[in-house]
Amino acid sequence: MNDDLTALIRTIPDFPKPGIAFRDITTLLLSPAGLAATVERLVLATRGRVDLVAGIEARGFLFAAAVAVPLNAGVLLIRKDGKLPGATIAEDYALEYGQDRIAMHADACAPGARVLLIDDLIATGGTARAAVRLLRKAGAVVEQAQFVVDLPDLGGADRLRAEGIAVDALVAFPGD
Amino acid sequence: MNDDLTALIRTIPDFPKPGIAFRDITTLLLSPAGLAATVERLVLATRGRVDLVAGIEARGFLFAAAVAVPLNAGVLLIRKDGKLPGATIAEDYALEYGQDRIAMHADACAPGARVLLIDDLIATGGTARAAVRLLRKAGAVVEQAQFVVDLPDLGGADRLRAEGIAVDALVAFPGD
Repeated sequence: MNDDLTALIRTIPDFPKPGIAFRDITTLLLSPAGLAATVERLVLATRGRVDLVAGIEARGFLFAAAVAVPLNAGVLLIRKDGKLPGATIAEDYALEYGQDRIAMHADACAPGARVLLIDDLIATGGTARAAVRLLRKAGAVVEQAQFVVDLPDLGGADRLRAEGIAVDALVAFPGD
Repeated sequence: MNDDLTALIRTIPDFPKPGIAFRDITTLLLSPAGLAATVERLVLATRGRVDLVAGIEARGFLFAAAVAVPLNAGVLLIRKDGKLPGATIAEDYALEYGQDRIAMHADACAPGARVLLIDDLIATGGTARAAVRLLRKAGAVVEQAQFVVDLPDLGGADRLRAEGIAVDALVAFPGD
């Protein structure tokens, strides 16, 4: 269905380490038509009224504001811990080796704010699920998440759905 | 002129270190009207036809795609060194202590491509000038740069202008 977008995504072998085929959206971003179609389809996939679009650092930022403007929503930043200047709340999540931590400003959303989560890609879903926990801790209502790329064999979208999130992705690479 | 936007920018004292008043655009981003006005005014400030909008990691990404879509342009990523998966070219720039390096994909723009540079804030201009050198090394025509916030006393906008760049910023904080 979104074959035009799939064709614009480049595959880089052995990045960030041997054996990984990296799905590189920078070639999609360089295409004016590809970028416009990506943003338009993310907007169209949105269900109901959204108050804030939460973008995950760094590539999620690319789509968060572009999608928020036509939705008449604001943007909420989910950043690596230590990057935000105000008082934050944080959430840890597991990496393949070790763990990492993401944060948001503690006052970024009013209780009950309807938040759409956006990132460029979902793989195992560790970051996205930590983002949902973080937003819910802040009182947000998080019912949908959108990604440009899904790697379905890694199960992240299914794990998000199991937490009550409607998940949309424009492009999937089964077998990754 | 853009007093409505200025009022949405929060000042955080002593971040990232004592004595620095951090101009925090996250409160502007949270405002649907503030975000929409920011993007609209950046688009309106653009001179002539632009092929690509170059966004500087990470906060520049927020505005790059939102501005590129109405300009019918693509987005080119300027990232911290080591983050891009393909073959890159890089440029060093001085920090207060030490130096840092930014990179772009070597094949990201065709020679002669007209590139608009975007970031959230210009202070001393070290990163922005490194981005201009990098883009010009790749053959891009870089004649304009846009920022949401200018700290004019730090001289970055003037240094960029001295390199033949038309610089626009929506909001200025003199005295910083």
